[in-house]
Amino acid sequence: MSNREIPETSPSEQSEAFSLAVDGMGGDGAPDVVVAGLAIAADRHPGMRVLLTGDEAKLRPLLARHPKAEAICTIWHTDESIPMDMKPTAALRVRKSSMRLGMDAVASGKARGVVSAGNSGAMLALAKIVVKTLPGISRPAMAAISPTIKGDVVMLDLGANVVCDWRNLVEFAVMGEAFAKAVLGLPAPRIGLLNIGSEELKGDEKLRIASEVLRESPLASQFHGFVEGHDITAGTTDVVVTDGFTGNVALKTGEGALKMATTLLRQVFSRSLVAKLGYLLVRPGLERMKEWLDPRRYNGAVFVGLNGVVVKSHGGTDAEGFAAAVDVAMDMVTHGFNDGIRERLSHMGALLSHQQSVAEREPAVIAS
Amino acid sequence: MSNREIPETSPSEQSEAFSLAVDGMGGDGAPDVVVAGLAIAADRHPGMRVLLTGDEAKLRPLLARHPKAEAICTIWHTDESIPMDMKPTAALRVRKSSMRLGMDAVASGKARGVVSAGNSGAMLALAKIVVKTLPGISRPAMAAISPTIKGDVVMLDLGANVVCDWRNLVEFAVMGEAFAKAVLGLPAPRIGLLNIGSEELKGDEKLRIASEVLRESPLASQFHGFVEGHDITAGTTDVVVTDGFTGNVALKTGEGALKMATTLLRQVFSRSLVAKLGYLLVRPGLERMKEWLDPRRYNGAVFVGLNGVVVKSHGGTDAEGFAAAVDVAMDMVTHGFNDGIRERLSHMGALLSHQQSVAEREPAVIAS
Repeated sequence: MSNREIPETSPSEQSEAFSLAVDGMGGDGAPDVVVAGLAIAADRHPGMRVLLTGDEAKLRPLLARHPKAEAICTIWHTDESIPMDMKPTAALRVRKSSMRLGMDAVASGKARGVVSAGNSGAMLALAKIVVKTLPGISRPAMAAISPTIKGDVVMLDLGANVVCDWRNLVEFAVMGEAFAKAVLGLPAPRIGLLNIGSEELKGDEKLRIASEVLRESPLASQFHGFVEGHDITAGTTDVVVTDGFTGNVALKTGEGALKMATTLLRQVFSRSLVAKLGYLLVRPGLERMKEWLDPRRYNGAVFVGLNGVVVKSHGGTDAEGFAAAVDVAMDMVTHGFNDGIRERLSHMGALLSHQQSVAEREPAVIAS
Repeated sequence: MSNREIPETSPSEQSEAFSLAVDGMGGDGAPDVVVAGLAIAADRHPGMRVLLTGDEAKLRPLLARHPKAEAICTIWHTDESIPMDMKPTAALRVRKSSMRLGMDAVASGKARGVVSAGNSGAMLALAKIVVKTLPGISRPAMAAISPTIKGDVVMLDLGANVVCDWRNLVEFAVMGEAFAKAVLGLPAPRIGLLNIGSEELKGDEKLRIASEVLRESPLASQFHGFVEGHDITAGTTDVVVTDGFTGNVALKTGEGALKMATTLLRQVFSRSLVAKLGYLLVRPGLERMKEWLDPRRYNGAVFVGLNGVVVKSHGGTDAEGFAAAVDVAMDMVTHGFNDGIRERLSHMGALLSHQQSVAEREPAVIAS
């Protein structure tokens, strides 16, 4: 789309939906990083059309410097944006923030998904109110992909729900399975429920009930059962389901451990001239390893369980990382992620409500 | 101690306490690994005297092959032992298991601590009933040390308590601090409470109350506040406090991530002849890195909060790992670990009971 077609105030005249709405003002490096990221993403997604929300006076000069981004972007101007440290309740009162316009675009069907590197609490709150939760899902979750020794793994929840019940965990399994199909392209992703190991210390009742329900569900053949922390990077399953508190800690602990390993490795290679020569000899392999573990490659957490595709980029990401978040959103839009969830839910519905009533009456029986 | 002095049936004639009781029959590699581990540990702890529980017919020939172990060990014979997969409730009914004799030795003052590589659920149950919980502590926890980029970190709980309240977390902080003093030799260890990051998603009420109590406690100057998953390996604090479920997942996720990094690294160095040459050039540095991250160096989880030193070795460890668990137990025995906890508790007692009554009456006020 050329610059001349950009609407001055609103994109309502657009007849066809935009591929994505992008919050131009969200994130530590916005709007520069956002526009530079879109320029990278433009090459990877021919035909992508972006509705870019934010301050036109700031966005237009940046687009001029990135013609590839300019060619795909339509600006939807607003003066308002949500600071990174604003409380969700306050963020909900900002009626025309760049983030909210993006959500509005998804809710009204103007865009098929939205990407923002902004305040994650505000994003979750806005997504619930504006984009709304899918029928049959009690609470949206945050999902992302991480590297394993074998391939990638989808983890959820990563912090949207600090406390979960068995029903939430079952729903996360349904959503995670659809996510792994859409983004990892797996025909039948295997699902694990994160627990702690030894028999006698085994997790609490919600885990036992969730496991029981999944074993009887249409996902039974893909349900591996319980997995432990070390199974995440071992690639034991393609999806790892857990509550938001545990998932957030596990994700960050794993990232921290990898960072420690790479820091120590850097010290090994800079110890002496001989070690530096050694580095030169293994450089190609190390570069591939670095690329495999690159956190930017895994940027793009998804709020799943909503009536639309909502992708959260890390706030401190660079252009390459932002482009990865756009990749995730485009994969989900293209592969009908929400259709997959809806289909699963229609098969799970009767089972879930049956289990709910049994669990409420006789928890001990279900848990045994 | 020479072989001739070994009592035939019971060590009751011994006037002076043994340094440690060691469960000769616990663990996947028992009794071989246990005896070989004691031979390694004997060199590192001159003067150590060990009461070795288990089947004399199996232990004696092994001791004969390891004269260093034989020189420090007295056998306390029993035919019974606890299988690795036995439920804790069943394990409690085995009256004369090698594990139980070790616990009995601590309870009766015959030994100053006990080490076992056996069934961890059975160990926790036996420790609570035989060694008993310290006055002022509501539930014992499992603690261990892990590597960070700066030094070592003490983490607890690692699985003894799947569900915790704020009071448990405060007690874990007290016990973790004493542990870090005894085993890491730090004069004033800094304490962090594991939480998830962003303001709006922040952890639940028990974390907020625990944080409030610690800020007003005698540990206030050492209390760093909340930490996140990536802070564990960053060495942000010397002690990381969390519930047993989260701690177990975090520990194993971190170990898994390090294992992935080392596996990928091995692939890098074996890709070509040139890469193999590169390996030779950086080998000394890599060996040091490997040693730093060696899981065996960190073997030896401690059940803290008991009336005695109870150390659990990984069931699948080798002799070197078992010796590390003995090191941990000897450090705790030597540095009066439990005296440190008792002293802290006497200062914390009034505060804890005050907070308890306030929390029960007005949780919202405390949480604010």
